[in-house]
Amino acid sequence: MPALDDLAGLRTPALVVDFDVVTSNMERMGSLLAQRDIALRPHVKTHKSPDLARLQLGHGAAGVTVATVAEASVFAAHGFEDIFVAYPVWADAETARLVRPILDTARLAVGVDSEASLGAWLDRLPDVRGRLDLMIEIDCGQHRTGVSPDAVVSLARACHEAGFAPRGVFTHGGHCYGGPGLVAGAAADEVRALADTKDRLGAAGLACEVVSAGSTPTVGRSGTGAVTEERPGVYVFNDRQQLILGSCTDEQIGAVVVTRVVSTSVADQFVVDAGSKALSSDSPPWVDGFGLVTEAGGASVTRLSEEHGVVECPGVSRPAVGDLVSIVPNHICSVVNLFAEMVVVQSGAVVDRWPVAARRA
Amino acid sequence: MPALDDLAGLRTPALVVDFDVVTSNMERMGSLLAQRDIALRPHVKTHKSPDLARLQLGHGAAGVTVATVAEASVFAAHGFEDIFVAYPVWADAETARLVRPILDTARLAVGVDSEASLGAWLDRLPDVRGRLDLMIEIDCGQHRTGVSPDAVVSLARACHEAGFAPRGVFTHGGHCYGGPGLVAGAAADEVRALADTKDRLGAAGLACEVVSAGSTPTVGRSGTGAVTEERPGVYVFNDRQQLILGSCTDEQIGAVVVTRVVSTSVADQFVVDAGSKALSSDSPPWVDGFGLVTEAGGASVTRLSEEHGVVECPGVSRPAVGDLVSIVPNHICSVVNLFAEMVVVQSGAVVDRWPVAARRA
Repeated sequence: MPALDDLAGLRTPALVVDFDVVTSNMERMGSLLAQRDIALRPHVKTHKSPDLARLQLGHGAAGVTVATVAEASVFAAHGFEDIFVAYPVWADAETARLVRPILDTARLAVGVDSEASLGAWLDRLPDVRGRLDLMIEIDCGQHRTGVSPDAVVSLARACHEAGFAPRGVFTHGGHCYGGPGLVAGAAADEVRALADTKDRLGAAGLACEVVSAGSTPTVGRSGTGAVTEERPGVYVFNDRQQLILGSCTDEQIGAVVVTRVVSTSVADQFVVDAGSKALSSDSPPWVDGFGLVTEAGGASVTRLSEEHGVVECPGVSRPAVGDLVSIVPNHICSVVNLFAEMVVVQSGAVVDRWPVAARRA
Repeated sequence: MPALDDLAGLRTPALVVDFDVVTSNMERMGSLLAQRDIALRPHVKTHKSPDLARLQLGHGAAGVTVATVAEASVFAAHGFEDIFVAYPVWADAETARLVRPILDTARLAVGVDSEASLGAWLDRLPDVRGRLDLMIEIDCGQHRTGVSPDAVVSLARACHEAGFAPRGVFTHGGHCYGGPGLVAGAAADEVRALADTKDRLGAAGLACEVVSAGSTPTVGRSGTGAVTEERPGVYVFNDRQQLILGSCTDEQIGAVVVTRVVSTSVADQFVVDAGSKALSSDSPPWVDGFGLVTEAGGASVTRLSEEHGVVECPGVSRPAVGDLVSIVPNHICSVVNLFAEMVVVQSGAVVDRWPVAARRA
């Protein structure tokens, strides 16, 4: 990250992205998966930025993953031609309005995890059969969405009967975010559930072209077995959660919130202008506070109001009112969605601004 | 709130505002403060909506309170003529760029809690002396920002010497949000600190025209003493925190997130399409989960991903995939900032859409 002196003219709080770090993170992930002959389909919910996703395509990505049809619509409008909505999408009126134009210019896949939601696609968009790819979601242990491997053959057959031949299966070992000790187990769960699923589909004579896994913590651990594709998202920026989970080093942090000290009126603390509307309130039980302050001896943001971040730092030399400090957010995906743009810096200077184009409308 | 059947065509998740409830909440607050001869200056960070703030002016509000100069700029551009930034604003380049145009059309006040930040105003915007109102922030017990009452005379004198005569003082008994048992004490702290402050200024021969307090939990408790103005924000919508703190009834909830069930693939739970990017992760220790589901026996949103809300509801009849449910957010201010617009309903029909015009840019 550049010296804060170079950023003195910024409106604060600002979401600042280091171009060189982000590029390096993209290169490393591209190499890792290329070596294993696994396709990289980065999850762009992390940054919601077509500018950044284009760079990812230049660093080995075969397409993009999104979380909502609205995000897919934005990326398709920006020229992206291979998009996977890794979510059990319900085909409502808004979905119908958005999906048909996307299919005019892009290959589109959506997740499905029930015959009920398959039925909604059939009811509302029967015309997209043969053009829309369905991906069956598998629950590998997060217990959020997805069917268990022993239910996949039944759902795949229903898809075939409805004329929506599924292209493959996907899972997310999101239980790795339960804490630092759970990553290896969650990665193994992903591989085991997907291999089991593929075996079951094969035994039933059903094709399964794509076997998709992934998260930033688990991505390096999928082996060279059943998995054909990985969908990490956070790796492009990293964040404090990834530091604690061991997914990255300090030098691989590619995005921070630059914020100004606005008050030191209470002893042993300072207050910055980044609150919950800039840092989000994301703070899992295994993370202390709401962000890591890089300038105050590694202090955490102790508590948040909407536009105030309070940093308690007894015994540490405090910055002065008016100073800039930078904060490594706990969870960068939530933070990006709170800003309209990212300020891109390189070699100590602002070189670009990237709109968060797929921010919720 | 209208029947969810009437909202079937909505894009989900949607932030839905009940016009009649909001109007009733505004009327009640207007009457309460008019009876006590206390000015109402609602905090519009809650809704960031000029449409809604105009209705507040029609229901007794004397002006608006905002949290940032950027919000002040949006409201001034929409014709608001009396704006208070209840925040210790640091006069940086962006502040200078925004403040002068605001002063062309509006009366503007900003908070100050240190001689350092006073000095920044003097350095960067000496030309606004005599036009910009300063309000000295008092710490009444939240211990976030603000000076203690025994430091107010010194800061007020420095303001006078700098040519920025302060118009008054303000405090926020935000420690009332520490839990249900703390509201009465925080309200008493507000009144005590402000009365003490006013006495000290009076003894020093310094004027103090405005004595401003307030939050939705404490607003009814300020008595008829020193306080001349209150700044509640959440009351216009209310939320789950206010329900638990006793500030409102179920019938006074004026905003919910309407969301769709997208998965029931895991037993004893259902998953909706409102995650942390719609509900925020705000959840103080005295609140269970991340929102109150009004259709599933009063279940809470148990855990959040960015676009998933998981509602564990063992023993309760689950809604079906595709159904709409509505959620009372824990903290409505954070939720509003996650949406670009509010859907306004009345008598079961959508009657308007209000942009969240002052959402962070």
